[in-house]
Amino acid sequence: MPSSDAATGGGFTLHPRLAADTYPIKDLALSQVLFMNDSRYPWLVLVPMRPDIIEVHDLAEADQLQLMTEISAASKTLATLFETDKINVGALGNIVPQLHVHVLSRRRTDEAWPGPVWGVGKTIPYSDAERIQTIKKIAPALEP
Amino acid sequence: MPSSDAATGGGFTLHPRLAADTYPIKDLALSQVLFMNDSRYPWLVLVPMRPDIIEVHDLAEADQLQLMTEISAASKTLATLFETDKINVGALGNIVPQLHVHVLSRRRTDEAWPGPVWGVGKTIPYSDAERIQTIKKIAPALEP
Repeated sequence: MPSSDAATGGGFTLHPRLAADTYPIKDLALSQVLFMNDSRYPWLVLVPMRPDIIEVHDLAEADQLQLMTEISAASKTLATLFETDKINVGALGNIVPQLHVHVLSRRRTDEAWPGPVWGVGKTIPYSDAERIQTIKKIAPALEP
Repeated sequence: MPSSDAATGGGFTLHPRLAADTYPIKDLALSQVLFMNDSRYPWLVLVPMRPDIIEVHDLAEADQLQLMTEISAASKTLATLFETDKINVGALGNIVPQLHVHVLSRRRTDEAWPGPVWGVGKTIPYSDAERIQTIKKIAPALEP
């Protein structure tokens, strides 16, 4: 077994589309926390490190509960660190089937408000400096 | 205290917009399960019967975990009863702030695929007969 499998729970591999769109922040007990490279919204993606999971109900019951704990932690972290009018949480997966949960901070002044963000407008990547600084702010606040 | 408060957990009142768009199916341990009156998608909405809750992280920890159990039950129920290519789960609340979680069945052939459903196209209400029959199918399958 390659060491990357051992590190991520055996057989789990991050979907290449998620890997391409994000930067890793840290691993919690269940999920990899990814940082969406779109400066329009403070935006995290949680990916449970279990192989072959598509729907929430595919997870073992204990993993479902841990996922909720991690969603709540991500939600509270964003609401605390960023000016937030509403947190949005979504598990869609119509394009990337691997189970992943979006947790993002919305403002009434953002471009997609009050609609959902997915598929709306064009991604605005962070500069390297902004991205590194923002991830540095988020990582220590995320407790598993 | 009016008896409706006693029945729904003290101080909880369903937001009028959610009441207008849906029909009640049943109450689980935490959430009212509502049936969205839009025949384009088999679509449930879970509303935790707690007053003044806007974000998932506003719920007590035990309620967060119960909410996940109910989301999973709703998700599995829809995937079992309806032809489903993907379940979508979303807690947005940009328009109706009271915490509510959408759980719906998507098909590759549906009008919004692969985008999210919120704000897309026009609601197509069920006929009375279709609605009653569909709710009858869902209600017994929803275990708390």
